[in-house]
Amino acid sequence: MTSLKLIKTMDIVKYLKEKKALVEAAMAGMAPGGKGLTDRLHQAMNYSLEAGGKRIRPILTIAACEALGGDINKVMPAACALEFIHTYSLIHDDLPAMDDDDYRRGEPTCHRAFDEATAILAGDGLLTAAFELLTRSDLFEGVDPATAMEVANDIARAAGHGGMVGGQQADMDAEGKEVDLPTLEFIHTHKTGALILASIKAGAKLGGGSPKKIKALIKYGEAAGLAFQVADDILDVTGDTTTLGKDAGSDEARGKATYPAILGVREAKNRAAELLDTALDSLNTFDSKADPLREIARYIVNRTH
Amino acid sequence: MTSLKLIKTMDIVKYLKEKKALVEAAMAGMAPGGKGLTDRLHQAMNYSLEAGGKRIRPILTIAACEALGGDINKVMPAACALEFIHTYSLIHDDLPAMDDDDYRRGEPTCHRAFDEATAILAGDGLLTAAFELLTRSDLFEGVDPATAMEVANDIARAAGHGGMVGGQQADMDAEGKEVDLPTLEFIHTHKTGALILASIKAGAKLGGGSPKKIKALIKYGEAAGLAFQVADDILDVTGDTTTLGKDAGSDEARGKATYPAILGVREAKNRAAELLDTALDSLNTFDSKADPLREIARYIVNRTH
Repeated sequence: MTSLKLIKTMDIVKYLKEKKALVEAAMAGMAPGGKGLTDRLHQAMNYSLEAGGKRIRPILTIAACEALGGDINKVMPAACALEFIHTYSLIHDDLPAMDDDDYRRGEPTCHRAFDEATAILAGDGLLTAAFELLTRSDLFEGVDPATAMEVANDIARAAGHGGMVGGQQADMDAEGKEVDLPTLEFIHTHKTGALILASIKAGAKLGGGSPKKIKALIKYGEAAGLAFQVADDILDVTGDTTTLGKDAGSDEARGKATYPAILGVREAKNRAAELLDTALDSLNTFDSKADPLREIARYIVNRTH
Repeated sequence: MTSLKLIKTMDIVKYLKEKKALVEAAMAGMAPGGKGLTDRLHQAMNYSLEAGGKRIRPILTIAACEALGGDINKVMPAACALEFIHTYSLIHDDLPAMDDDDYRRGEPTCHRAFDEATAILAGDGLLTAAFELLTRSDLFEGVDPATAMEVANDIARAAGHGGMVGGQQADMDAEGKEVDLPTLEFIHTHKTGALILASIKAGAKLGGGSPKKIKALIKYGEAAGLAFQVADDILDVTGDTTTLGKDAGSDEARGKATYPAILGVREAKNRAAELLDTALDSLNTFDSKADPLREIARYIVNRTH
């Protein structure tokens, strides 16, 4: 059993690495460019786009498409747009008025590398560029425009006031306050979960899933999205600073609500395990083409950094 | 002649008032809502949406549609989305890291009425909400999804790094520096002109214009968009603080490049008059249904506040 688990872990690491390279190549092709008076803006946008990260959202889009046997070329623009949106959200979250972070993944944050005004505009530019990609008919050849529009709408709703932006506001408002479990779940399902779910939905719809398959993938996405954040909270408590790439215990120091703080570490781990089961169960009717999705869910819950 | 001019002026004032009411009613119906943990975010978004202004962008969308004899119900979602985008840009421009303005139209700016983090998020939320509107198929019934997608893409390009956001960056970078005319025109055509042009394009395309008519309206939009900014620059020098609702001479005090500063007031006025002629000429093949567009162009150049 141990060796089997080990092989599986090896496979998913390889899969993630390959897909990350694929996403980054596609992103380079769709990156905002231009010269002259907007040089500094484009430098800032690309600085943050190239700052790395797991690219988990676009990889989930690809994996959902693959689970259906779909053509991944049809999902790449949406996959890149989702990473643009995630990147913009990090730039704005790091601003002095928000989390006031000087470093991200060991490098200066956008407003430290450039300046605050440029960072605000780089975020605005990336968010807008995402919708520029999502509405470019030349990138969605062979996709029904109505489907492309539906996917763009799903992503807008997930990213906006009813999703990620709303979750960030709730998170800011809750800082330093006593937070109950429903509030914490609201914050996490909105701030992180909504865009992860939208990533899977985009892959499911552009991958040509039947309504039943799309529904199953949505169930997977809801569970995986929340599991991702629960695991992140646990890592912040149990991880060490070296493997995390950020200060362990930083959430607690900042007065941020977390699952371990409310439930305790053991109960939080149980919650993550439950969510993993739900995610895996929702894929029951899928064949081995859904193995990457299964392994990603396991990886999300069991990762150490 | 004088009385005829007077009647015309009265008409356009009435037209603008009526359409403004129409736009604001539609915006109220599409305004972002929700309760509970995102209350503060929605309050901030609606505070800025309801703060007034001329609503010139959505009115231009409506007027372009009317010039073609189109159904204005088909353009209202796009018209509202354009005002959402304009409003988000004002919120972010007013931030301490950008123009650091405490008041707009006599009321505290969003970050003064709420706080900086909320203002950043309210702007992000409005920008995203605009694309949520632009991709809602239920709002574009009777419109070919490919056309709706094209309009959303035009607006994304006009609002983003290649348009408004790029223009704002160039404007910030130019502050306090010696600026030549090409740089100033770049700033204005991008920062203000692009979204005004996109407003007219949206009305033209959703209004069902032929390629030839759309081309003529684009020419109108390019000239009117730049004229709007030239006139704004002149007003900043020649207007008085009471009628302007902001400090006259504030651009100069801030070291912002303006047309009168580079060309002198007289030459700047000539440039505005030339642009007005270009805008009017481009409508030569249109009948009286384009009168609102003609009068709006005159109003833009001749307004005193």
